[in-house]
Amino acid sequence: MRKVDNEEIVGGINTVDTIIDLGKDSSKKLFVLKSKTSLRIKSLIEKAESKNIGIFFKDLNFFKTNCKNINHQGIAILYKSRKEEDDSFLDGLLERKNLLLLILDHLTDPHNVGACIRSAAAANVDAIIVPKNRSCHLTPVVRKISSGGSELIPFVIVKNLVRALKKISSSGVDILGADLSGEESYSEINFSLRVAFVIGSEDKGLKRLTSENCDKLIKIKMPGKIQSLNASVSAGILLFEFLNYQKSKME
Amino acid sequence: MRKVDNEEIVGGINTVDTIIDLGKDSSKKLFVLKSKTSLRIKSLIEKAESKNIGIFFKDLNFFKTNCKNINHQGIAILYKSRKEEDDSFLDGLLERKNLLLLILDHLTDPHNVGACIRSAAAANVDAIIVPKNRSCHLTPVVRKISSGGSELIPFVIVKNLVRALKKISSSGVDILGADLSGEESYSEINFSLRVAFVIGSEDKGLKRLTSENCDKLIKIKMPGKIQSLNASVSAGILLFEFLNYQKSKME
Repeated sequence: MRKVDNEEIVGGINTVDTIIDLGKDSSKKLFVLKSKTSLRIKSLIEKAESKNIGIFFKDLNFFKTNCKNINHQGIAILYKSRKEEDDSFLDGLLERKNLLLLILDHLTDPHNVGACIRSAAAANVDAIIVPKNRSCHLTPVVRKISSGGSELIPFVIVKNLVRALKKISSSGVDILGADLSGEESYSEINFSLRVAFVIGSEDKGLKRLTSENCDKLIKIKMPGKIQSLNASVSAGILLFEFLNYQKSKME
Repeated sequence: MRKVDNEEIVGGINTVDTIIDLGKDSSKKLFVLKSKTSLRIKSLIEKAESKNIGIFFKDLNFFKTNCKNINHQGIAILYKSRKEEDDSFLDGLLERKNLLLLILDHLTDPHNVGACIRSAAAANVDAIIVPKNRSCHLTPVVRKISSGGSELIPFVIVKNLVRALKKISSSGVDILGADLSGEESYSEINFSLRVAFVIGSEDKGLKRLTSENCDKLIKIKMPGKIQSLNASVSAGILLFEFLNYQKSKME
């Protein structure tokens, strides 16, 4: 189907639910697979109707064409998607007194990037930062896996990651890179109020130049035989440890 | 290609690496995409040669046929895979003084199950427990995503999950279900030495009967607008919080 600039179709129950909730007239049309009549889908239809979003019943071919490679669960939405941000967005961010950033160092798997965005949206991260080249950006699969997180959290594409790291660090934000070679355990860090976590790619971990531009490398000690975690799991563990730390300081 | 019972081909650099390390004559043949000559692949070839595993250079068609839906990264291995366990395995487990179990309540997405196994293998979980019906088991995609974790951690398929929960609980293991309706935060729990975490499915969370058979429901508080995490991220956060807690008790 024809889409205008900035419009996307994404599928999946949680994703559609989040996007309908966003409101702001961004949702245009809800598509439902004719044979699907589960309770959750019915409640999504009601919610969409209450927001004056048009409901369209479609056959499987429509979903196959418009939700390629996506587990659409029989529901999809056409909406005005949130755009990616660029370097200039970073300047505004760095003025904040409290800051939680998630930097993805050349992740290429859309499942991982999407799951990282979802964790970031749950942890109320201020922005996700990724490099322009050799990195996965906001594709439809990423948006689906993020469960709507891509519409909530700014996704900043910087031209040069090393230059961005230098800028972030010199503004006083602690850049903490997740790396098995780190000397300090993530669970023993005294976190400041302005932190950026850096997560390396699946295959290679942090790139050398990225690692050299972190203020500190921190490790997640693993007692098991497998010594690496899925990128989104590492991100989740670090982000929620940070939240626990800040909460315990406030008590 | 022809495989005998219990033999599997899985692809992916990390997965192949873990399986070669397992040794035990379980690895039979290493397959390398002709055009692939990265440093990591070369080192895997050397490692395989040192263990007398035959090396076979293959074209892309071989990988398309034998590594369907898998990001094989140009390398795959034929090996004797670890079998799934059944109810009888549980009895032996429950005699242990220290126990860490991960129970997956009807997860159906192989990416999630694979990532849960990977986190479990990093956290040295004693076993993963899943129900026989309406649940994803050890498929090739799960084995790939688990990065070799499926060969390390017992994967127990129980006929009836509720009955298994009752048995686990009555043996004195604390069954902690991850659920937003939980009263206690996961970060405030006094964990015992024998714990089983239960993770619900993506769409529906914990099933009612599962939830009723947990000793306690615990929640991961999320300050952001998204109020759910990827199953493997929830599992990772809980497992590593448990490890941190036990470590702090030992100090």
